Amino acid sequence: MRDLSKDHRFLSINWATTREQFPRLEQLAVALARADVRGISPWREPVQEIGAKAAGKLIRDHGLTVTGYCRGGLFSNQGRAGLKAQIEDNRRCLDEAAEIGAACVVMVAGSLAPGSKDIRDARAMAREGLAELLPYARQAGVALGIEPLHPKYAADRCTCTSLGEANDICEALDPRGQGGIGVVVDVYHVWWDHRIAEEIARAGRGRRILAFHICDWLVPMRDMLLDRGMMGDGAIDIPHLRGLVEAAGYDGFCEVEIFSADTWWKKPGDEVIKTCIERYRTVV
Amino acid sequence: MRDLSKDHRFLSINWATTREQFPRLEQLAVALARADVRGISPWREPVQEIGAKAAGKLIRDHGLTVTGYCRGGLFSNQGRAGLKAQIEDNRRCLDEAAEIGAACVVMVAGSLAPGSKDIRDARAMAREGLAELLPYARQAGVALGIEPLHPKYAADRCTCTSLGEANDICEALDPRGQGGIGVVVDVYHVWWDHRIAEEIARAGRGRRILAFHICDWLVPMRDMLLDRGMMGDGAIDIPHLRGLVEAAGYDGFCEVEIFSADTWWKKPGDEVIKTCIERYRTVV
Repeated sequence: MRDLSKDHRFLSINWATTREQFPRLEQLAVALARADVRGISPWREPVQEIGAKAAGKLIRDHGLTVTGYCRGGLFSNQGRAGLKAQIEDNRRCLDEAAEIGAACVVMVAGSLAPGSKDIRDARAMAREGLAELLPYARQAGVALGIEPLHPKYAADRCTCTSLGEANDICEALDPRGQGGIGVVVDVYHVWWDHRIAEEIARAGRGRRILAFHICDWLVPMRDMLLDRGMMGDGAIDIPHLRGLVEAAGYDGFCEVEIFSADTWWKKPGDEVIKTCIERYRTVV
Repeated sequence: MRDLSKDHRFLSINWATTREQFPRLEQLAVALARADVRGISPWREPVQEIGAKAAGKLIRDHGLTVTGYCRGGLFSNQGRAGLKAQIEDNRRCLDEAAEIGAACVVMVAGSLAPGSKDIRDARAMAREGLAELLPYARQAGVALGIEPLHPKYAADRCTCTSLGEANDICEALDPRGQGGIGVVVDVYHVWWDHRIAEEIARAGRGRRILAFHICDWLVPMRDMLLDRGMMGDGAIDIPHLRGLVEAAGYDGFCEVEIFSADTWWKKPGDEVIKTCIERYRTVV
Protein backbone atom coordinates (compact mmCIF):
# COMPACT_ATOMS: atom_id res chain seq x y z
CA MET A 1 0.00 0.00 0.00
CA ARG A 2 1.38 3.37 -0.98
CA ASP A 3 2.56 5.83 1.64
CA LEU A 4 0.54 8.97 0.97
CA SER A 5 1.88 10.96 3.89
CA LYS A 6 4.89 12.50 2.14
CA ASP A 7 3.18 14.55 -0.56
CA HIS A 8 -0.11 14.71 -2.43
CA ARG A 9 0.93 13.78 -5.93
CA PHE A 10 -1.97 11.33 -6.30
CA LEU A 11 -4.67 13.68 -5.05
CA SER A 12 -7.40 14.73 -7.44
CA ILE A 13 -10.25 17.12 -6.74
CA ASN A 14 -13.65 16.64 -8.30
CA TRP A 15 -15.21 19.90 -9.49
CA ALA A 16 -18.29 19.25 -7.33
CA THR A 17 -16.21 19.52 -4.15
CA THR A 18 -15.80 23.28 -4.53
CA ARG A 19 -18.42 23.97 -7.16
CA GLU A 20 -20.06 26.73 -5.12
CA GLN A 21 -16.74 28.51 -4.55
CA PHE A 22 -15.14 27.80 -7.94
CA PRO A 23 -17.97 27.24 -10.40
CA ARG A 24 -15.85 28.19 -13.40
CA LEU A 25 -13.26 25.68 -14.54
CA GLU A 26 -10.54 28.30 -14.66
CA GLN A 27 -11.13 29.22 -11.02
CA LEU A 28 -10.69 25.60 -10.00
CA ALA A 29 -7.66 24.98 -12.23
CA VAL A 30 -5.89 28.03 -10.83
CA ALA A 31 -6.69 27.05 -7.24
CA LEU A 32 -5.46 23.51 -7.78
CA ALA A 33 -2.23 24.65 -9.41
CA ARG A 34 -1.70 27.07 -6.51
CA ALA A 35 -2.00 24.16 -4.06
CA ASP A 36 0.13 21.87 -6.22
CA VAL A 37 -2.76 19.47 -6.71
CA ARG A 38 -2.15 17.40 -9.85
CA GLY A 39 -5.53 15.82 -10.57
CA ILE A 40 -8.90 17.25 -11.55
CA SER A 41 -12.27 15.74 -12.39
CA PRO A 42 -14.58 18.23 -14.10
CA TRP A 43 -18.30 17.96 -14.65
CA ARG A 44 -19.88 18.73 -17.99
CA GLU A 45 -21.41 22.07 -16.93
CA PRO A 46 -18.15 24.01 -16.50
CA VAL A 47 -16.60 22.34 -19.54
CA GLN A 48 -19.54 23.11 -21.80
CA GLU A 49 -19.56 26.68 -20.50
CA ILE A 50 -16.26 27.41 -22.24
CA GLY A 51 -16.24 24.55 -24.74
CA ALA A 52 -14.27 21.32 -24.50
CA LYS A 53 -11.40 22.60 -26.62
CA ALA A 54 -10.74 25.61 -24.41
CA ALA A 55 -11.27 23.44 -21.32
CA GLY A 56 -8.67 20.95 -22.55
CA LYS A 57 -6.13 23.72 -23.14
CA LEU A 58 -6.83 25.24 -19.74
CA ILE A 59 -6.35 21.90 -18.03
CA ARG A 60 -3.11 21.17 -19.89
CA ASP A 61 -1.79 24.66 -19.23
CA HIS A 62 -2.17 24.04 -15.51
CA GLY A 63 -0.45 20.68 -15.66
CA LEU A 64 -3.51 18.77 -14.50
CA THR A 65 -4.36 15.12 -15.06
CA VAL A 66 -8.06 14.49 -15.72
CA THR A 67 -9.00 11.54 -13.53
CA GLY A 68 -12.58 11.38 -14.78
CA TYR A 69 -15.31 13.30 -16.53
CA CYS A 70 -18.68 13.59 -14.79
CA ARG A 71 -20.99 12.37 -15.90
CA GLY A 72 -22.47 10.16 -18.56
CA GLY A 73 -25.09 7.46 -18.50
CA LEU A 74 -28.55 8.28 -17.12
CA PHE A 75 -29.89 5.99 -19.82
CA SER A 76 -33.27 5.21 -18.30
CA ASN A 77 -34.12 8.68 -17.03
CA GLN A 78 -36.52 9.42 -19.90
CA GLY A 79 -37.76 5.88 -20.39
CA ARG A 80 -37.43 3.76 -23.53
CA ALA A 81 -38.69 6.63 -25.67
CA GLY A 82 -35.71 8.71 -24.61
CA LEU A 83 -33.01 6.05 -24.74
CA LYS A 84 -31.70 6.92 -28.19
CA ALA A 85 -31.35 10.59 -27.29
CA GLN A 86 -29.54 9.68 -24.07
CA ILE A 87 -27.10 7.49 -25.98
CA GLU A 88 -26.49 10.26 -28.48
CA ASP A 89 -25.84 12.69 -25.64
CA ASN A 90 -23.35 10.21 -24.20
CA ARG A 91 -21.48 10.24 -27.51
CA ARG A 92 -21.08 14.00 -27.13
CA CYS A 93 -19.96 13.41 -23.57
CA LEU A 94 -17.28 11.00 -24.80
CA ASP A 95 -16.18 13.54 -27.42
CA GLU A 96 -15.78 16.16 -24.71
CA ALA A 97 -13.94 13.70 -22.50
CA ALA A 98 -11.50 12.89 -25.30
CA GLU A 99 -10.95 16.59 -25.94
CA ILE A 100 -10.01 17.29 -22.33
CA GLY A 101 -7.92 14.13 -22.05
CA ALA A 102 -10.07 12.33 -19.47
CA ALA A 103 -9.12 8.79 -18.56
CA CYS A 104 -12.77 7.82 -18.26
CA VAL A 105 -16.32 9.09 -18.30
CA VAL A 106 -18.09 8.39 -15.02
CA MET A 107 -21.23 6.51 -16.02
CA VAL A 108 -24.27 6.66 -13.73
CA ALA A 109 -26.82 4.09 -14.87
CA GLY A 110 -29.93 6.21 -14.47
CA SER A 111 -33.18 6.30 -12.52
CA LEU A 112 -36.42 4.43 -12.87
CA ALA A 113 -38.24 5.67 -15.95
CA PRO A 114 -40.87 8.36 -15.27
CA GLY A 115 -43.83 6.76 -13.49
CA SER A 116 -42.25 3.31 -13.61
CA LYS A 117 -41.57 0.83 -10.81
CA ASP A 118 -39.65 -1.49 -13.12
CA ILE A 119 -36.06 -1.45 -11.95
CA ARG A 120 -35.26 -4.48 -14.07
CA ASP A 121 -36.21 -2.65 -17.24
CA ALA A 122 -34.26 0.43 -16.17
CA ARG A 123 -31.26 -1.81 -15.65
CA ALA A 124 -31.74 -3.33 -19.10
CA MET A 125 -31.73 0.16 -20.63
CA ALA A 126 -28.44 1.00 -18.95
CA ARG A 127 -26.90 -2.19 -20.22
CA GLU A 128 -28.17 -1.53 -23.76
CA GLY A 129 -26.83 1.99 -23.66
CA LEU A 130 -23.41 0.92 -22.44
CA ALA A 131 -23.24 -1.84 -25.06
CA GLU A 132 -24.02 0.60 -27.82
CA LEU A 133 -21.46 3.14 -26.57
CA LEU A 134 -18.58 0.75 -25.99
CA PRO A 135 -17.21 0.71 -29.58
CA TYR A 136 -17.47 4.49 -29.69
CA ALA A 137 -15.67 4.82 -26.38
CA ARG A 138 -12.87 2.53 -27.53
CA GLN A 139 -12.46 4.56 -30.69
CA ALA A 140 -12.38 7.79 -28.68
CA GLY A 141 -9.81 6.33 -26.30
CA VAL A 142 -11.96 7.11 -23.27
CA ALA A 143 -13.17 4.29 -21.04
CA LEU A 144 -16.71 3.93 -19.75
CA GLY A 145 -16.36 4.00 -15.97
CA ILE A 146 -19.45 2.45 -14.42
CA GLU A 147 -19.95 3.95 -10.99
CA PRO A 148 -22.32 2.03 -8.77
CA LEU A 149 -24.10 4.54 -6.54
CA HIS A 150 -25.34 3.87 -3.04
CA PRO A 151 -28.61 1.88 -3.01
CA LYS A 152 -30.42 4.88 -1.53
CA TYR A 153 -30.27 6.38 -5.05
CA ALA A 154 -31.70 3.31 -6.81
CA ALA A 155 -35.03 4.97 -7.62
CA ASP A 156 -34.03 8.47 -8.61
CA ARG A 157 -30.45 8.32 -9.87
CA CYS A 158 -28.75 5.01 -10.45
CA THR A 159 -30.11 1.50 -10.67
CA CYS A 160 -26.58 0.07 -10.55
CA THR A 161 -26.25 -0.21 -6.78
CA SER A 162 -23.25 -2.41 -6.09
CA LEU A 163 -19.79 -3.12 -7.39
CA GLY A 164 -20.86 -6.70 -8.05
CA GLU A 165 -23.52 -5.44 -10.42
CA ALA A 166 -21.02 -3.15 -12.19
CA ASN A 167 -18.58 -6.06 -12.51
CA ASP A 168 -21.34 -8.23 -13.97
CA ILE A 169 -22.02 -5.59 -16.62
CA CYS A 170 -18.34 -5.25 -17.50
CA GLU A 171 -17.92 -8.99 -17.88
CA ALA A 172 -21.06 -9.27 -19.98
CA LEU A 173 -20.11 -6.45 -22.34
CA ASP A 174 -16.37 -7.11 -22.47
CA PRO A 175 -16.02 -10.85 -21.95
CA ARG A 176 -12.54 -11.02 -23.45
CA GLY A 177 -11.15 -8.12 -21.46
CA GLN A 178 -10.44 -5.87 -24.41
CA GLY A 179 -10.95 -2.80 -22.26
CA GLY A 180 -12.83 0.43 -22.79
CA ILE A 181 -15.14 -0.34 -19.89
CA GLY A 182 -14.51 -0.57 -16.17
CA VAL A 183 -15.66 0.56 -12.77
CA VAL A 184 -15.32 3.57 -10.52
CA VAL A 185 -15.02 2.74 -6.83
CA ASP A 186 -16.37 5.47 -4.54
CA VAL A 187 -16.06 4.65 -0.85
CA TYR A 188 -19.30 6.49 -0.04
CA HIS A 189 -21.27 4.26 -2.36
CA VAL A 190 -19.77 0.85 -1.61
CA TRP A 191 -18.39 0.80 1.94
CA TRP A 192 -21.45 -1.01 3.38
CA ASP A 193 -21.11 -4.04 1.09
CA HIS A 194 -20.12 -7.27 2.83
CA ARG A 195 -18.71 -8.54 -0.48
CA ILE A 196 -16.65 -5.45 -1.25
CA ALA A 197 -13.27 -7.15 -0.86
CA GLU A 198 -14.16 -9.91 -3.32
CA GLU A 199 -15.69 -7.50 -5.80
CA ILE A 200 -12.74 -5.11 -5.72
CA ALA A 201 -10.41 -8.06 -6.29
CA ARG A 202 -12.60 -9.23 -9.15
CA ALA A 203 -12.53 -5.78 -10.76
CA GLY A 204 -8.77 -5.74 -10.33
CA ARG A 205 -8.29 -9.11 -12.00
CA GLY A 206 -10.00 -7.65 -15.05
CA ARG A 207 -7.84 -4.51 -14.79
CA ARG A 208 -11.06 -2.60 -14.56
CA ILE A 209 -10.62 -0.18 -11.65
CA LEU A 210 -10.59 3.14 -13.45
CA ALA A 211 -10.92 5.56 -10.54
CA PHE A 212 -11.07 5.68 -6.76
CA HIS A 213 -13.28 8.33 -5.15
CA ILE A 214 -13.12 9.39 -1.52
CA CYS A 215 -15.18 11.32 1.00
CA ASP A 216 -16.90 10.09 4.17
CA TRP A 217 -20.26 8.89 5.50
CA LEU A 218 -21.54 11.16 8.25
CA VAL A 219 -23.68 10.04 11.17
CA PRO A 220 -26.17 11.61 11.48
CA MET A 221 -26.63 12.58 7.86
CA ARG A 222 -28.77 15.64 7.33
CA ASP A 223 -29.49 15.24 3.65
CA MET A 224 -29.76 12.23 1.35
CA LEU A 225 -27.64 13.93 -1.32
CA LEU A 226 -25.80 17.00 -0.13
CA ASP A 227 -24.31 16.00 3.22
CA ARG A 228 -21.18 14.05 2.39
CA GLY A 229 -18.35 14.31 4.85
CA MET A 230 -14.66 15.16 4.57
CA MET A 231 -12.39 12.12 4.80
CA GLY A 232 -11.89 11.21 8.44
CA ASP A 233 -15.11 12.75 9.70
CA GLY A 234 -17.35 9.75 9.19
CA ALA A 235 -17.87 6.00 9.46
CA ILE A 236 -15.81 4.71 6.55
CA ASP A 237 -12.52 2.87 7.03
CA ILE A 238 -10.95 4.54 3.99
CA PRO A 239 -7.43 3.09 4.37
CA HIS A 240 -8.91 -0.41 4.36
CA LEU A 241 -10.72 0.24 1.08
CA ARG A 242 -7.70 1.97 -0.46
CA GLY A 243 -5.65 -1.06 0.56
CA LEU A 244 -8.09 -3.30 -1.28
CA VAL A 245 -8.02 -1.30 -4.52
CA GLU A 246 -4.24 -1.04 -4.41
CA ALA A 247 -3.88 -4.75 -3.72
CA ALA A 248 -6.07 -5.20 -6.78
CA GLY A 249 -3.54 -3.29 -8.85
CA TYR A 250 -4.87 0.26 -8.78
CA ASP A 251 -2.11 2.85 -8.61
CA GLY A 252 -3.93 5.98 -9.78
CA PHE A 253 -5.32 9.06 -8.11
CA CYS A 254 -7.56 9.38 -5.07
CA GLU A 255 -10.30 11.74 -6.15
CA VAL A 256 -12.16 13.78 -3.56
CA GLU A 257 -15.84 14.19 -4.38
CA ILE A 258 -17.85 15.91 -1.65
CA PHE A 259 -21.33 17.38 -1.97
CA SER A 260 -21.80 19.36 1.21
CA ALA A 261 -24.33 22.15 1.08
CA ASP A 262 -24.11 23.19 4.72
CA THR A 263 -20.45 22.63 5.54
CA TRP A 264 -17.78 22.42 2.85
CA TRP A 265 -19.57 24.44 0.19
CA LYS A 266 -19.78 27.26 2.74
CA LYS A 267 -16.05 27.51 3.46
CA PRO A 268 -13.49 29.34 1.31
CA GLY A 269 -12.46 27.11 -1.58
CA ASP A 270 -8.75 27.29 -0.84
CA GLU A 271 -9.41 26.17 2.72
CA VAL A 272 -11.40 23.18 1.46
CA ILE A 273 -8.58 22.18 -0.87
CA LYS A 274 -6.06 22.59 1.94
CA THR A 275 -8.19 20.34 4.15
CA CYS A 276 -8.43 17.74 1.38
CA ILE A 277 -4.63 17.70 1.14
CA GLU A 278 -4.18 17.35 4.88
CA ARG A 279 -6.73 14.56 5.19
CA TYR A 280 -5.35 12.80 2.12
CA ARG A 281 -1.95 12.66 3.79
CA THR A 282 -3.24 11.52 7.19
CA VAL A 283 -6.46 9.50 7.05
CA VAL A 284 -6.78 8.18 3.49
CA MET B 1 -49.07 -16.41 -6.43
CA ARG B 2 -51.91 -15.93 -4.01
CA ASP B 3 -54.88 -13.76 -4.90
CA LEU B 4 -55.04 -11.19 -2.11
CA SER B 5 -57.91 -9.20 -3.55
CA LYS B 6 -60.76 -11.16 -1.96
CA ASP B 7 -60.05 -10.58 1.73
CA HIS B 8 -57.19 -9.62 4.03
CA ARG B 9 -56.65 -12.77 6.00
CA PHE B 10 -52.87 -12.62 5.52
CA LEU B 11 -52.48 -8.99 6.50
CA SER B 12 -50.46 -8.16 9.58
CA ILE B 13 -49.85 -4.72 11.05
CA ASN B 14 -46.61 -3.86 12.74
CA TRP B 15 -47.09 -1.82 15.91
CA ALA B 16 -44.81 0.92 14.53
CA THR B 17 -47.27 1.67 11.73
CA THR B 18 -49.75 3.29 14.10
CA ARG B 19 -47.57 3.71 17.15
CA GLU B 20 -48.40 7.41 17.52
CA GLN B 21 -52.14 6.73 17.36
CA PHE B 22 -52.21 3.42 19.24
CA PRO B 23 -49.14 3.37 21.50
CA ARG B 24 -50.67 0.89 23.92
CA LEU B 25 -50.91 -2.71 22.79
CA GLU B 26 -54.55 -2.93 23.79
CA GLN B 27 -55.47 0.03 21.61
CA LEU B 28 -53.88 -1.65 18.62
CA ALA B 29 -55.33 -5.10 19.33
CA VAL B 30 -58.83 -3.65 19.61
CA ALA B 31 -58.43 -1.61 16.42
CA LEU B 32 -57.14 -4.63 14.50
CA ALA B 33 -59.94 -6.88 15.74
CA ARG B 34 -62.44 -4.18 14.74
CA ALA B 35 -61.02 -4.18 11.20
CA ASP B 36 -60.81 -7.98 11.08
CA VAL B 37 -57.03 -7.88 10.73
CA ARG B 38 -55.57 -11.22 11.85
CA GLY B 39 -51.86 -10.49 12.25
CA ILE B 40 -49.91 -8.26 14.59
CA SER B 41 -46.23 -7.57 15.14
CA PRO B 42 -45.53 -5.79 18.42
CA TRP B 43 -42.39 -4.03 19.52
CA ARG B 44 -40.90 -4.60 22.93
CA GLU B 45 -41.96 -1.21 24.36
CA PRO B 46 -45.72 -1.85 24.42
CA VAL B 47 -45.23 -5.46 25.51
CA GLN B 48 -42.93 -4.58 28.39
CA GLU B 49 -45.34 -1.83 29.44
CA ILE B 50 -47.93 -4.41 30.49
CA GLY B 51 -45.68 -7.45 30.78
CA ALA B 52 -45.31 -10.28 28.29
CA LYS B 53 -47.80 -12.53 30.06
CA ALA B 54 -50.61 -9.97 29.90
CA ALA B 55 -49.59 -9.07 26.36
CA GLY B 56 -49.84 -12.70 25.32
CA LYS B 57 -53.30 -13.04 26.82
CA LEU B 58 -54.44 -9.79 25.19
CA ILE B 59 -53.21 -10.95 21.80
CA ARG B 60 -54.85 -14.37 22.11
CA ASP B 61 -58.09 -12.83 23.33
CA HIS B 62 -58.26 -10.80 20.14
CA GLY B 63 -57.54 -13.79 17.93
CA LEU B 64 -54.30 -12.34 16.59
CA THR B 65 -51.33 -14.17 15.11
CA VAL B 66 -47.97 -12.70 16.08
CA THR B 67 -45.98 -12.50 12.85
CA GLY B 68 -42.86 -11.19 14.53
CA TYR B 69 -41.50 -9.49 17.64
CA CYS B 70 -39.47 -6.30 17.19
CA ARG B 71 -36.70 -6.26 17.88
CA GLY B 72 -33.66 -8.14 18.98
CA GLY B 73 -30.04 -8.04 17.96
CA LEU B 74 -28.17 -4.72 18.14
CA PHE B 75 -25.17 -6.77 19.21
CA SER B 76 -22.43 -4.30 18.33
CA ASN B 77 -24.13 -1.12 19.54
CA GLN B 78 -22.08 -0.94 22.74
CA GLY B 79 -18.90 -2.47 21.34
CA ARG B 80 -17.21 -5.67 22.49
CA ALA B 81 -17.46 -4.56 26.11
CA GLY B 82 -21.23 -4.56 25.84
CA LEU B 83 -21.72 -7.72 23.80
CA LYS B 84 -22.48 -10.03 26.72
CA ALA B 85 -25.13 -7.68 28.05
CA GLN B 86 -26.69 -7.38 24.59
CA ILE B 87 -26.85 -11.16 24.29
CA GLU B 88 -28.41 -11.43 27.73
CA ASP B 89 -30.99 -8.82 26.75
CA ASN B 90 -31.75 -10.85 23.64
CA ARG B 91 -32.48 -13.89 25.82
CA ARG B 92 -35.11 -11.81 27.63
CA CYS B 93 -36.42 -10.73 24.26
CA LEU B 94 -36.77 -14.38 23.21
CA ASP B 95 -38.55 -15.17 26.49
CA GLU B 96 -41.03 -12.37 25.81
CA ALA B 97 -41.47 -13.55 22.23
CA ALA B 98 -42.24 -17.08 23.42
CA GLU B 99 -44.72 -15.74 25.95
CA ILE B 100 -46.68 -13.81 23.31
CA GLY B 101 -46.45 -16.65 20.79
CA ALA B 102 -44.31 -14.87 18.21
CA ALA B 103 -43.13 -16.86 15.21
CA CYS B 104 -39.80 -15.06 15.25
CA VAL B 105 -37.81 -12.25 16.79
CA VAL B 106 -36.76 -9.69 14.21
CA MET B 107 -32.99 -9.42 14.61
CA VAL B 108 -31.26 -6.20 13.58
CA ALA B 109 -27.50 -6.77 13.55
CA GLY B 110 -26.45 -3.51 15.16
CA SER B 111 -24.43 -0.40 14.40
CA LEU B 112 -20.75 0.30 14.31
CA ALA B 113 -19.38 0.28 17.85
CA PRO B 114 -19.10 3.72 19.48
CA GLY B 115 -16.27 5.64 17.82
CA SER B 116 -15.40 2.72 15.54
CA LYS B 117 -15.09 2.56 11.76
CA ASP B 118 -14.66 -1.20 11.80
CA ILE B 119 -17.72 -2.64 10.09
CA ARG B 120 -16.06 -6.03 9.83
CA ASP B 121 -15.70 -6.29 13.58
CA ALA B 122 -19.28 -5.12 14.10
CA ARG B 123 -20.38 -7.86 11.72
CA ALA B 124 -18.35 -10.40 13.65
CA MET B 125 -20.09 -9.36 16.87
CA ALA B 126 -23.50 -9.88 15.31
CA ARG B 127 -22.51 -13.32 14.12
CA GLU B 128 -21.15 -14.24 17.54
CA GLY B 129 -24.29 -13.02 19.22
CA LEU B 130 -26.56 -14.95 16.88
CA ALA B 131 -24.47 -18.09 17.28
CA GLU B 132 -24.72 -17.88 21.04
CA LEU B 133 -28.47 -17.27 20.96
CA LEU B 134 -29.39 -19.99 18.49
CA PRO B 135 -29.63 -22.91 20.98
CA TYR B 136 -31.65 -20.72 23.33
CA ALA B 137 -33.98 -19.70 20.52
CA ARG B 138 -34.51 -23.29 19.47
CA GLN B 139 -35.33 -24.25 23.03
CA ALA B 140 -37.76 -21.34 23.29
CA GLY B 141 -39.40 -22.30 20.03
CA VAL B 142 -38.88 -18.84 18.58
CA ALA B 143 -36.78 -18.39 15.45
CA LEU B 144 -34.12 -15.72 15.02
CA GLY B 145 -35.27 -13.68 12.03
CA ILE B 146 -32.30 -11.81 10.60
CA GLU B 147 -33.57 -8.70 8.90
CA PRO B 148 -31.09 -7.05 6.57
CA LEU B 149 -31.70 -3.32 6.67
CA HIS B 150 -31.14 -0.91 3.82
CA PRO B 151 -27.43 -0.04 3.36
CA LYS B 152 -28.15 3.55 4.34
CA TYR B 153 -28.39 2.26 7.94
CA ALA B 154 -25.06 0.38 7.87
CA ALA B 155 -23.30 2.80 10.20
CA ASP B 156 -25.94 3.59 12.79
CA ARG B 157 -28.33 0.64 12.90
CA CYS B 158 -27.52 -2.54 11.04
CA THR B 159 -24.34 -3.81 9.48
CA CYS B 160 -26.25 -6.64 7.78
CA THR B 161 -27.16 -4.81 4.58
CA SER B 162 -28.32 -7.41 2.11
CA LEU B 163 -30.28 -10.62 1.94
CA GLY B 164 -27.18 -12.36 0.62
CA GLU B 165 -25.35 -11.45 3.80
CA ALA B 166 -28.25 -12.69 5.95
CA ASN B 167 -28.33 -15.94 3.98
CA ASP B 168 -24.59 -16.35 4.48
CA ILE B 169 -25.04 -16.01 8.24
CA CYS B 170 -27.88 -18.53 8.30
CA GLU B 171 -25.90 -21.07 6.33
CA ALA B 172 -22.83 -20.60 8.52
CA LEU B 173 -24.73 -20.96 11.79
CA ASP B 174 -27.20 -23.62 10.68
CA PRO B 175 -25.35 -25.62 8.03
CA ARG B 176 -27.59 -28.66 8.33
CA GLY B 177 -30.85 -26.70 8.15
CA GLN B 178 -32.08 -27.60 11.61
CA GLY B 179 -33.98 -24.34 11.81
CA GLY B 180 -34.35 -21.75 14.51
CA ILE B 181 -32.76 -19.10 12.31
CA GLY B 182 -33.93 -17.46 9.13
CA VAL B 183 -34.46 -14.16 7.36
CA VAL B 184 -37.02 -11.39 7.28
CA VAL B 185 -37.58 -9.89 3.84
CA ASP B 186 -38.67 -6.25 3.93
CA VAL B 187 -39.25 -4.75 0.50
CA TYR B 188 -38.03 -1.33 1.65
CA HIS B 189 -34.66 -2.74 2.62
CA VAL B 190 -33.95 -5.08 -0.29
CA TRP B 191 -35.79 -3.87 -3.40
CA TRP B 192 -32.68 -2.23 -4.90
CA ASP B 193 -30.59 -5.43 -4.94
CA HIS B 194 -29.82 -6.81 -8.40
CA ARG B 195 -29.42 -10.27 -6.85
CA ILE B 196 -32.66 -10.21 -4.91
CA ALA B 197 -34.36 -12.95 -6.96
CA GLU B 198 -31.48 -15.38 -6.44
CA GLU B 199 -31.19 -14.56 -2.75
CA ILE B 200 -34.91 -14.96 -2.09
CA ALA B 201 -34.81 -18.31 -3.88
CA ARG B 202 -31.79 -19.32 -1.82
CA ALA B 203 -33.54 -18.38 1.43
CA GLY B 204 -36.56 -20.35 0.27
CA ARG B 205 -34.54 -23.47 -0.48
CA GLY B 206 -33.40 -23.43 3.13
CA ARG B 207 -37.01 -22.81 4.29
CA ARG B 208 -35.72 -19.69 5.92
CA ILE B 209 -38.14 -16.92 4.94
CA LEU B 210 -39.75 -16.15 8.28
CA ALA B 211 -41.59 -12.93 7.47
CA PHE B 212 -42.40 -10.58 4.62
CA HIS B 213 -42.63 -6.87 5.37
CA ILE B 214 -44.19 -4.27 3.12
CA CYS B 215 -44.32 -0.50 2.72
CA ASP B 216 -42.96 1.69 -0.10
CA TRP B 217 -39.96 3.79 -1.08
CA LEU B 218 -40.93 7.41 -1.64
CA VAL B 219 -39.25 9.77 -4.11
CA PRO B 220 -38.36 12.29 -2.89
CA MET B 221 -37.74 10.99 0.61
CA ARG B 222 -37.81 13.68 3.26
CA ASP B 223 -36.20 11.75 6.10
CA MET B 224 -33.69 8.91 6.21
CA LEU B 225 -35.73 7.03 8.81
CA LEU B 226 -39.27 8.32 9.24
CA ASP B 227 -40.55 8.84 5.72
CA ARG B 228 -41.62 5.41 4.56
CA GLY B 229 -44.51 5.26 2.14
CA MET B 230 -47.79 3.39 2.04
CA MET B 231 -47.78 0.47 -0.41
CA GLY B 232 -48.45 1.79 -3.89
CA ASP B 233 -47.18 5.30 -3.29
CA GLY B 234 -43.53 4.68 -4.14
CA ALA B 235 -40.96 3.07 -6.39
CA ILE B 236 -41.13 -0.57 -5.32
CA ASP B 237 -42.66 -3.27 -7.49
CA ILE B 238 -44.20 -5.05 -4.49
CA PRO B 239 -46.13 -7.73 -6.41
CA HIS B 240 -42.91 -8.78 -8.10
CA LEU B 241 -41.17 -9.26 -4.77
CA ARG B 242 -44.19 -10.99 -3.23
CA GLY B 243 -44.19 -13.30 -6.24
CA LEU B 244 -40.57 -14.15 -5.55
CA VAL B 245 -41.08 -14.97 -1.87
CA GLU B 246 -44.19 -17.02 -2.64
CA ALA B 247 -42.40 -18.90 -5.43
CA ALA B 248 -39.76 -19.61 -2.79
CA GLY B 249 -42.37 -21.26 -0.60
CA TYR B 250 -43.48 -18.47 1.68
CA ASP B 251 -47.20 -18.59 2.44
CA GLY B 252 -47.39 -16.44 5.56
CA PHE B 253 -48.52 -12.93 6.36
CA CYS B 254 -47.68 -9.65 4.65
CA GLU B 255 -46.74 -7.33 7.48
CA VAL B 256 -47.10 -3.58 7.05
CA GLU B 257 -44.33 -1.63 8.74
CA ILE B 258 -44.42 2.10 8.03
CA PHE B 259 -42.54 4.81 9.92
CA SER B 260 -44.06 8.03 8.68
CA ALA B 261 -43.75 11.02 10.96
CA ASP B 262 -45.34 13.56 8.66
CA THR B 263 -48.02 11.55 6.88
CA TRP B 264 -49.34 8.29 8.27
CA TRP B 265 -48.59 8.93 11.94
CA LYS B 266 -50.67 12.10 11.63
CA LYS B 267 -53.86 10.42 10.37
CA PRO B 268 -56.45 8.67 12.55
CA GLY B 269 -55.27 5.13 13.30
CA ASP B 270 -58.42 3.45 11.99
CA GLU B 271 -58.03 5.30 8.71
CA VAL B 272 -54.42 4.09 8.40
CA ILE B 273 -55.48 0.49 9.01
CA LYS B 274 -58.29 0.85 6.49
CA THR B 275 -55.81 2.15 3.93
CA CYS B 276 -53.44 -0.74 4.65
CA ILE B 277 -56.30 -3.17 3.97
CA GLU B 278 -57.27 -1.47 0.73
CA ARG B 279 -53.69 -1.30 -0.55
CA TYR B 280 -53.04 -4.90 0.52
CA ARG B 281 -55.94 -6.03 -1.64
CA THR B 282 -55.02 -3.93 -4.66
CA VAL B 283 -51.29 -3.21 -5.00
CA VAL B 284 -49.47 -5.81 -2.91
